[in-house]
Order: sequence, then structure tokens, then C-alpha cells
Amino acid sequence: MSTSPFLAGGTPDQPRLIFADWMHAVQAHIESTLARLLPPAEAIPARLHEAMRYASLGGGKRVRPLLAFAAGELTGAAPERVEIVASAVELIHAYSLVHDDLPCMDDDVLRRGRPTCHVEYDEPTALLVGDSLQALAFELLARSALSDPGRQLEMLRLLAHASGSCGMAGGQAIDLGAVGHALNTPELELMHALKTGALIRAAVRLGALCGEPLSDKAEAALDRFAKRAGLLFQVVDDILDCTASTATLGKTAGKDAAAEKPTYVSLMGLERAREFADDLRTQALAALAIFGERGQRLIELTDFITHRKF
Amino acid sequence: MSTSPFLAGGTPDQPRLIFADWMHAVQAHIESTLARLLPPAEAIPARLHEAMRYASLGGGKRVRPLLAFAAGELTGAAPERVEIVASAVELIHAYSLVHDDLPCMDDDVLRRGRPTCHVEYDEPTALLVGDSLQALAFELLARSALSDPGRQLEMLRLLAHASGSCGMAGGQAIDLGAVGHALNTPELELMHALKTGALIRAAVRLGALCGEPLSDKAEAALDRFAKRAGLLFQVVDDILDCTASTATLGKTAGKDAAAEKPTYVSLMGLERAREFADDLRTQALAALAIFGERGQRLIELTDFITHRKF
Repeated sequence: MSTSPFLAGGTPDQPRLIFADWMHAVQAHIESTLARLLPPAEAIPARLHEAMRYASLGGGKRVRPLLAFAAGELTGAAPERVEIVASAVELIHAYSLVHDDLPCMDDDVLRRGRPTCHVEYDEPTALLVGDSLQALAFELLARSALSDPGRQLEMLRLLAHASGSCGMAGGQAIDLGAVGHALNTPELELMHALKTGALIRAAVRLGALCGEPLSDKAEAALDRFAKRAGLLFQVVDDILDCTASTATLGKTAGKDAAAEKPTYVSLMGLERAREFADDLRTQALAALAIFGERGQRLIELTDFITHRKF
Repeated sequence: MSTSPFLAGGTPDQPRLIFADWMHAVQAHIESTLARLLPPAEAIPARLHEAMRYASLGGGKRVRPLLAFAAGELTGAAPERVEIVASAVELIHAYSLVHDDLPCMDDDVLRRGRPTCHVEYDEPTALLVGDSLQALAFELLARSALSDPGRQLEMLRLLAHASGSCGMAGGQAIDLGAVGHALNTPELELMHALKTGALIRAAVRLGALCGEPLSDKAEAALDRFAKRAGLLFQVVDDILDCTASTATLGKTAGKDAAAEKPTYVSLMGLERAREFADDLRTQALAALAIFGERGQRLIELTDFITHRKF
């Protein structure tokens, strides 16, 4: 691979990419990295491996890998390291989608414009796909050289915590309990802080941890950014769920409202939700001030998250 | 805790325990260790945490923790380390039981003499319980001081590989594909080598890795033992599935035959399966010869696995 698309400032030979080109370069790079890191489709058990690739490859916005690469620019992280942590985080995300789409959860048939994993294969295979993608994420972090071993253990601890019952899976459990109930704003924020926020924070922190250590102050600012960006991502998701079409989203639109799930839009109305997103964007960008020019990709990414249409 | 029950040779003050007492001491110790390491039942999300505890606590033979402690005796491993790896392996095992029991897999209602997790709670909760127990297993291995960090990363890699699509989950996938088909003996061995063997091997290796390094020769002998012991465990399981009662097993008896799943008994008949188990026991014990007296607990455990009634 050429590492140039991911360089922070560009070089005389290779000028800095505009954001859209950078984003596409990272997305294409993550696609090929995942294709390389996943077991081959013909390895035994072939049906499971084929289904794991089906669930992980072929697109998606790759927001978490983008955040990891952008955060890696803050600390001068080597792309060969960032691509591993970005892939691990994306595998955790992919597993969560497969399990969330199962009939006993959201019972969804469409994901990224294609049949969901249990529709394309079958339910028990989809269950094992999720289980196996989770294990693979941790195997990747454990077997690759990412930092000194002590720091690498910290990276593993961080991803495991963000994925489990006090992170993503815990947020999903709160969501289950909330269907048909009225949550207030702090309860909704806690749910999202876990359900989507924890993994987004992990993506940012892991990307940065691949490079030089940050000062305590810079680390705290980056985490403040990550928390606001995670919530921003979710608020925009809620807005899109009730304003965009199924065709644009590549997943079933309007399903949160149909399932009487609490969303920012149901709680505060569309207009106020848009204002809230704008406030979060402002707070996220303010947290990045300390990084100066090095934070440029994260700034651009924040604007992308705010204004995305899918 | 007092570490004495786990000492290899006993001391003048505390003589070596007979096997049955040692086994009960380890089982009780793992129960209390898991109770301490699992999130409290009242921590948010409380229902998920309560269900995680339901699925992990309250018994089971704890064969994998017993193997980890017995293997730890070979290398003089500290019990405070072995209890962590033993717990991590047991959490992976517990998650696999919860997911295997789901309606889309084995659809079982009884486990360890109690309603299965999705019967006691509900299906989506059981799905998240499995997902969360897996994450917790890796978090425990990453956050505890078990060895030098480089070796600890190797332990994490080993557990992740043993759990995933080229280990336990992969064996489960082969099992899914085999229902109603005729597998030959090598195919059945591959399925079991992954489905139960991989995690049993990991338990043995992780327990030993908590102590002093083994020579290459000793390490190879221990792995030879672990492979034979894993297969022995499965053959005895197949024999019990068709000879013991549901009440004795604490899980539904005869369900493999009912589901037309290939087993050693269906493949070779009861008598030949018993002879095969005896051969495996002999091979497992032969592999332990290199360890002399230090291998005593593993020898006793092999006999327990061979002659168990549940």
C-alpha cells in the first residue's frame, strides 16, 4: 500500500488531499484491509467465513475507521498501525449490526442496501458470524505490533470495555428496556453514550494511541471531542431516520418511530433536534482547538457527520 | 482467599488435598472469583448484568478452570493469576452455552438443572448476555497482571483464536452444517477439535502460561495431552448423552440422537466408543509422563473426565 493518502500534511510530491478524496481513500483502504484480515471465504468452515465477509465487506460509511485515522494524525501514528485498530473497531461494529438485525432484536431485512446476514444466510449462521467477528477483533489487536506491549494491553482493555455490558452491548440492553417507555433526556443520553458513543470514543482513542503519547490535557480534550462527536452522530442518525428515505439510507427508514423507540426527534421535535446537533458540533470543534492544524481532519469529519445525508 | 488448596505438593502445615477435595475447592473458588469479577447485578443495565450472573454462576463442572489450575501446577503458577485465565475461559464457555441454547440454535430449555437464559429472561437479553460475557473475558485478560506484557498479549491472542471462527464458533458452524448428514470419523474429529477441543486446549495452555516457561519439548507434550483430553471429554459426553438421564445431566439427555446429530456413539456404537475413550485416556496420560509428580492433578483430572457420570 502507499501510505501517502493518510499523511497529515502532505509532501511536496504528494500534496494534502481534499477531504472527500481523503475519505474515499480511507474507506477503500479499510475495505481492502478487512478483506485481507478476514479469513478467506474458502477456509473451513466455508459458509461461516463467507458470511463473515458478507457482513463486514461491501461498504458502509466506515465512520469509526475514519475517526481512528483522523485521530491518528494528531499523534503521528503509522497507518500500518491505525489500519489494525480501525479494522478491529469496525469488526465490533459489524458484529453488532448482525446481531441487532436478528429477528429476536430489530428483525430487520435490509442493511447497506442488501439483505441482512440472517436473511442472506440463516439465523444460526448470523449468530455465529457476530460471535466470530467479535473474537477476530480482539485477535487482531492481540497479534499485531501496535505499540509497546503494555500500551497494547491497555488498547485491548479499552476496546473490550467499550464493547461489553458497560459499553455498546449495555446500551443495546437499555434500548431494549426502553421500547414503548418514555425516557427523559438524561436517560436517552446515557443509552446513546453506551450504544453508539462508547465505540466511537474507542475508535478515536485507539487511533491516537497508535502514535506518540498525548499530554494529559490533550488526551482529555480529545476524549471531550469524542464524546460530543458520538452523541452528534446519534442525533443526526435520529434526524435522518425520520427525514430520509429507505433507498438513501440503505436501511429501513422510520423504523425507530414505528417501534416507538425513544429518539431525539420524538423527544424534542425535529427543529430542536437540529439545533441540538448544531450545539454538539460547536462543542466538538471547540475541544479540538488545542490541536491546531493537526486537528484539521477531525474538524472536516465532524462537519461530514453533521451534514451527511445517509 | 487462602491459596493453599491449589498448592502443588502441600506443606507440612497443609498437606496435599485428595483429588475430590481439591476439585471442590477449585470449583468453589472459581464460583467466588466469577462472582467478584462479574459486574454487580444492580449496576446499570441491571437486567443484563443480572442475566450475565445467572448464566455464569451457580455451578457447572468447571472442567476448563480445573484444567487451568492443574496445568498451572506444572509451572508453579500463582493462583491469583490462574484464577483470572480460568475465569476468562469459563466466561467464553458460558457465553457459548447461552447462544447454543437459543431457539435458532439448539432451542434448549434446561441447563445445569435450571431454565436456560432466554427462558428465564428473554431472547434478546440472552443474545446480549453472550455478547457481553465474551467481551468481559477479553477485558479480564487485558486488565489483569498475568505475566510480562508480551506474553500476556500472546495469551489474549490464544484465547481469541480458540474462541472464534477457526476455533469454538467454527466448530459450532460445522456442527450446524452436519445435522442430518453422515460425517466420517475424521470430519467428526475436526468438528470436535474446534467445538470443544480448542477451548479446552486454551484452558490448559493459559493455565501453564501463568507460571515459569516450559521447554519446547514439555510444551509440545502438554499440548498433546490437551488435544487428547479435549477429545476424550467429547467422547464421554456423547456416551453420557445416550446413557444418562436428564435429571443426572442437568441438561436434556438424548437430544443429539433426537436431532440426528453425528456423535461417536452413532458413528461407532456404544461399546466401541467406550474403547475409544479408554484409548484416548491412555494417550493423554502417556503425554504427561514427562512432568513426573507435578502432573498428578492432570492425571487425576483425566480419570475424572473419563469416569464422570454427568
